[in-house]
Amino acid sequence: MEAKLVKDGGVTSAQGFQAAGIACGLKEGGAKDLALIVSDIPAEVAATFTTNAVKAAPVKVSMRHARNHTKIRGVVVNSGCANACTGVSGITDAKAMIEHAAKVTTSKPREWLVCSTGRIGTRLPMAKILKGIDKAADKLGSESGVEAAKAIMTTDTRRKECAMRFKVAGRKVTIGGMAKGAGMIHPNMATMLCFITTDANIDRTTLRSCVAEAVEMSFNRISVDGDTSTNDTVIVLANGAAGTPLLKSFHPQYPLFTKTLTQVMRKLARMIVEDGEGITRVVEVVVKGAANANDAKLATLAVSKSELIKCAWAGGDPNWGRIMAALGYSGARVREEMVEIFYDGVAAVVNGQPSKTPVARLKKICRQPKFTITINLHAGSAEHSVLTTDLTEEYVKINLGE
Amino acid sequence: MEAKLVKDGGVTSAQGFQAAGIACGLKEGGAKDLALIVSDIPAEVAATFTTNAVKAAPVKVSMRHARNHTKIRGVVVNSGCANACTGVSGITDAKAMIEHAAKVTTSKPREWLVCSTGRIGTRLPMAKILKGIDKAADKLGSESGVEAAKAIMTTDTRRKECAMRFKVAGRKVTIGGMAKGAGMIHPNMATMLCFITTDANIDRTTLRSCVAEAVEMSFNRISVDGDTSTNDTVIVLANGAAGTPLLKSFHPQYPLFTKTLTQVMRKLARMIVEDGEGITRVVEVVVKGAANANDAKLATLAVSKSELIKCAWAGGDPNWGRIMAALGYSGARVREEMVEIFYDGVAAVVNGQPSKTPVARLKKICRQPKFTITINLHAGSAEHSVLTTDLTEEYVKINLGE
Repeated sequence: MEAKLVKDGGVTSAQGFQAAGIACGLKEGGAKDLALIVSDIPAEVAATFTTNAVKAAPVKVSMRHARNHTKIRGVVVNSGCANACTGVSGITDAKAMIEHAAKVTTSKPREWLVCSTGRIGTRLPMAKILKGIDKAADKLGSESGVEAAKAIMTTDTRRKECAMRFKVAGRKVTIGGMAKGAGMIHPNMATMLCFITTDANIDRTTLRSCVAEAVEMSFNRISVDGDTSTNDTVIVLANGAAGTPLLKSFHPQYPLFTKTLTQVMRKLARMIVEDGEGITRVVEVVVKGAANANDAKLATLAVSKSELIKCAWAGGDPNWGRIMAALGYSGARVREEMVEIFYDGVAAVVNGQPSKTPVARLKKICRQPKFTITINLHAGSAEHSVLTTDLTEEYVKINLGE
Repeated sequence: MEAKLVKDGGVTSAQGFQAAGIACGLKEGGAKDLALIVSDIPAEVAATFTTNAVKAAPVKVSMRHARNHTKIRGVVVNSGCANACTGVSGITDAKAMIEHAAKVTTSKPREWLVCSTGRIGTRLPMAKILKGIDKAADKLGSESGVEAAKAIMTTDTRRKECAMRFKVAGRKVTIGGMAKGAGMIHPNMATMLCFITTDANIDRTTLRSCVAEAVEMSFNRISVDGDTSTNDTVIVLANGAAGTPLLKSFHPQYPLFTKTLTQVMRKLARMIVEDGEGITRVVEVVVKGAANANDAKLATLAVSKSELIKCAWAGGDPNWGRIMAALGYSGARVREEMVEIFYDGVAAVVNGQPSKTPVARLKKICRQPKFTITINLHAGSAEHSVLTTDLTEEYVKINLGE
């Protein structure tokens, strides 16, 4: 049995979850900038945080809470200010957000997580934030996922939500979520937030291993610009409201749970890449036949991060020469005369030299909004893949600053 | 005593060197595309080649010749076609260039080196090349350095030459050179060629250690777009025509030779960066106080390669938050609360948090065509620096392909 997509699904599709998204004045023009996600009953949590050594204050606070043995009641999120590089005051502010959210929902601060996203190096305007939490608590509702999804956006041009549903022992189990992110996107987490809720009945240890696997196969395989932010967070809450037997790893439906969680995350990850700043094409880079897993990763990342290659894609130019050069400096074991490169399955390079495919045919492929580049190094059997984008003049324009 | 700049100096400023630059039809519109550099007497050679695992055919051939114990008579160079990813035929073509150049100068093939630069993956039109070598041999002259400098250009907007002169035992010693490169520029060599000639009397071993040191302090410390090409080469020829005593490492003027060689290479390296594709600003990134040399390098490269940071520079935006994020993901040991960041000596970040410097003052600095960012990690005493550029819409436009 396969899980099915829930129409207009999001972070409140699973049973027993409410959300809200409101404007508290952090963003100009009255756009929504504060969200709450609340589980009616305490939920198990699994979370992944940025690997950046410079971590934002909310990341530091949430890491501690997520590691505790308490269950979680909710998450408070603001956009417009990252609360990063704000020192001890930033920690105080992040804790104040949590304390206030706990107070208005009659729960405990340690049952809360906090996230911020936006510009680095400025303090949060706490008076606005606290009033905003009051306002959001009043608007909590089990159909307000869409409002929350709007409130976490920064340079995103559209909201990112999805949900899927399957059955365990005759009862419906839903996994739904929302994400934000468009720039500073790169494997090992980016300016990227993702919140997933599920009513699955699953214990913490099992949930955490599922989440680690799903993150590795989704958010750790996308790249827009190679920059990893100080605030990246994926939070998964599981409240058990579906009322099924406990999903341990030996449960027959356990593989379906992991698979569906991965699918939901991959869908959200793809939405982030498709909304990449200024992009015109989404490119999947697949490296096969690498000598080992690390080589596969090195080769994939060199190709998916090269400014020169990404500019060629923007121009719809196959330019496999730049790909050969990137493979060469990637650090992976590469024997030039063994390399094959395919564009949507059509050979461009065979034995390290141009194939007989007419360039016009390759160009047609590279002018599509989506295509796949498959590279076979013929040096072993390891594989890796990354979903990436082209690099356009528009990306530069967006990131010039004020 | 200091070495002095030679006015309009270049690859033929040193005694006993001739050059030529002619058009043989590789480039459209009749632009020069083939150069010869010839030493009247056999010269010692020291050369550095790309670290890319995918090496162009001329690189493979020249590496072998430069490692032999023969002295070198000359170098033949073409622009417009890189002769890379061309398999065994490419090697045959590179050897044919050398054989023909040796024949027309009545020297031996093993006394020649060959370089190519341009697009990857197409064969050289050998009939044109061989005729071009004949034509260039006819035009060889000791004042034709400028013609050769024009003939090696690809996306360069201006030619890159310089020479310096000093005295050893009362006799003039000259070090002069030319370079090309504008895109695909990154430490460990790039689409970058550099040819240096000197009439210094120096043995091969001493020359090689000087060149290794000078390359490390010059070409290995520049970055335009982080891409390392398949063709990068630095060749230094020393023919001893100055007639001085042999410059061994214990000679009192030996430090001046190394220093001057480094200065010539740094000048040429800076010219490459200043001619970077589409750039509007040259930025020196200096990392101090790193825990060790590798950390210093990691931190410097993360900052000087970040697309996001380079876009901010294009916009004249200090955006030190992006620098903090890059330091955090660089892999170097970074304690946020210890980090200091200065723009042209003016503090932007102190103790990991914004300084009291008005943003307007930092912006004024970042709107200059040149500025220096100094980062102190306060984790040790290692230092590194890289000369890099901003990333503009123009760079993207140039690299879109046809």
